[in-house]
Amino acid sequence: MAGARVDGRVARGNQTRRLVLGRTMDIASVEGLDGLSIGRVATELGLSKSGVFALFGSKEEMQLATIRAARAVYARRVVHPAEEVPPGVGRVRELCASYLAYSRGRTFRGGCFFTAVAAEFSARDGAVRDAVAAARAEWIGCVRGVIQEARDLGELRADVDVPQLAFELAALLEMANADSVLHRDDGGYGRAARAIDERLAAATPGG
Amino acid sequence: MAGARVDGRVARGNQTRRLVLGRTMDIASVEGLDGLSIGRVATELGLSKSGVFALFGSKEEMQLATIRAARAVYARRVVHPAEEVPPGVGRVRELCASYLAYSRGRTFRGGCFFTAVAAEFSARDGAVRDAVAAARAEWIGCVRGVIQEARDLGELRADVDVPQLAFELAALLEMANADSVLHRDDGGYGRAARAIDERLAAATPGG
Repeated sequence: MAGARVDGRVARGNQTRRLVLGRTMDIASVEGLDGLSIGRVATELGLSKSGVFALFGSKEEMQLATIRAARAVYARRVVHPAEEVPPGVGRVRELCASYLAYSRGRTFRGGCFFTAVAAEFSARDGAVRDAVAAARAEWIGCVRGVIQEARDLGELRADVDVPQLAFELAALLEMANADSVLHRDDGGYGRAARAIDERLAAATPGG
Repeated sequence: MAGARVDGRVARGNQTRRLVLGRTMDIASVEGLDGLSIGRVATELGLSKSGVFALFGSKEEMQLATIRAARAVYARRVVHPAEEVPPGVGRVRELCASYLAYSRGRTFRGGCFFTAVAAEFSARDGAVRDAVAAARAEWIGCVRGVIQEARDLGELRADVDVPQLAFELAALLEMANADSVLHRDDGGYGRAARAIDERLAAATPGG
C-alpha cells in the first residue's frame, strides 16, 4: 500500500513535470530561456510555486530540463522520420524536409526551439549555454552523418566535402525558419527546399 | 552666454548618450535586448539612474535607440564598404566579405547584433520586434539590391532569381556567424566564403 501511494505520487510528479515542460518549451521558443521563471510558470499553470520548485530545484535546472525535453521533441519530429528512410540521398532529403515541416508546423510556438535559444545564449558562458551548444553540435553531427552515409553508398560523389555540404544545408534550413518567424514570410521554405535540391543534385555522381 | 550653456549641456548629453549606446549595443549583442535595464546600464557606467532615464525615458526607448545605433554601425561596417566598390559582382562579393569581417572581428562583443536580437524578439509583438524586423528586412533588401545591380549590368545571368540568391547568401553569412559565436568555431567563415564563391560562379554568364 505504501508502495502504491509512492507510485501514485511519482506518477503525478511525472505528469506535472511533463505539463510544466510543455509550457516552458513554448515560452522559451518565443521569449527565450531567460523568460522562464518558476513563479511565472506556476502562475500560468495554476500550480503552487513550491510545487514547481520541488520539481526542478532552481531556474537553471528548469532551463536545462527544458532543453532536454526539446531535444527529445526535435529527435522525434526531425531526426526519427529520416531514420525510417533507408540511408542515402533519400535520407538526407527526408531530414531536411522534416526540419522544414517541424519549423513550418510550429511544433514550438516560436518556431525552431534551438534557433531561438542558440542566439540568446551563444555569447554567454555556463551550463545552459553548454547544453544549447551540445544540442546544436548534435544536430550538425546528424546532418553530417546522413551526408556521409550517402557518400559512402556512392549516392553522393566521393569528392563531396561533408562538413561543407552540411554547413550549407543547415544554413538554408535555419534561414527559412528565421524568415518565417521574424518576417512571417513563408517563402523561405520553398527557397530552402529549392536550394537544397540544387546542392544535392550538384553533389550527385554525374550531377 | 545662456546659449553657450545650453549648447554645453546638449553636447554633454550627446556624449553621454553615445557612451550609453556603446554599452547597450555590446550588452544586447551578448545577452539580448531584454538584458538592458536603465539601472544596470547606469551602474555599469557609473552614471545616475535618473540621468540615464532622462536620456531615454523608458526601457523600450533605450532598446529602440540601441537598435538605431546598431543599424548605423552595421551600415558603416558592412554596407558602406560595398558601396565604395563599383556596382556588379565585385560589390556583391565585397558586401559578403564585409559582413564576414564584421562578424569575425566582433564589432559587437556577441557577434552580429541583428542575429542576436532577431531570434530574441522574432516571435513576439511590439515596437522592438518591428524595429528588429525592419532592420533585417533592410539588410535583405540591400543584398537583393546589389545582386539586382549585378544582373542588370549583365555580370550575373538574366535568369538569376534575385530573392533566391539573396536568401542563399544571407543564410551562409548568418550560419558562419552562428558557428563562430556558439561553437567558437571559425571554420564557418571559410565555408561561407567558399559557398558564396560557388553560388556567384554558377550565376555568372557562362558559369
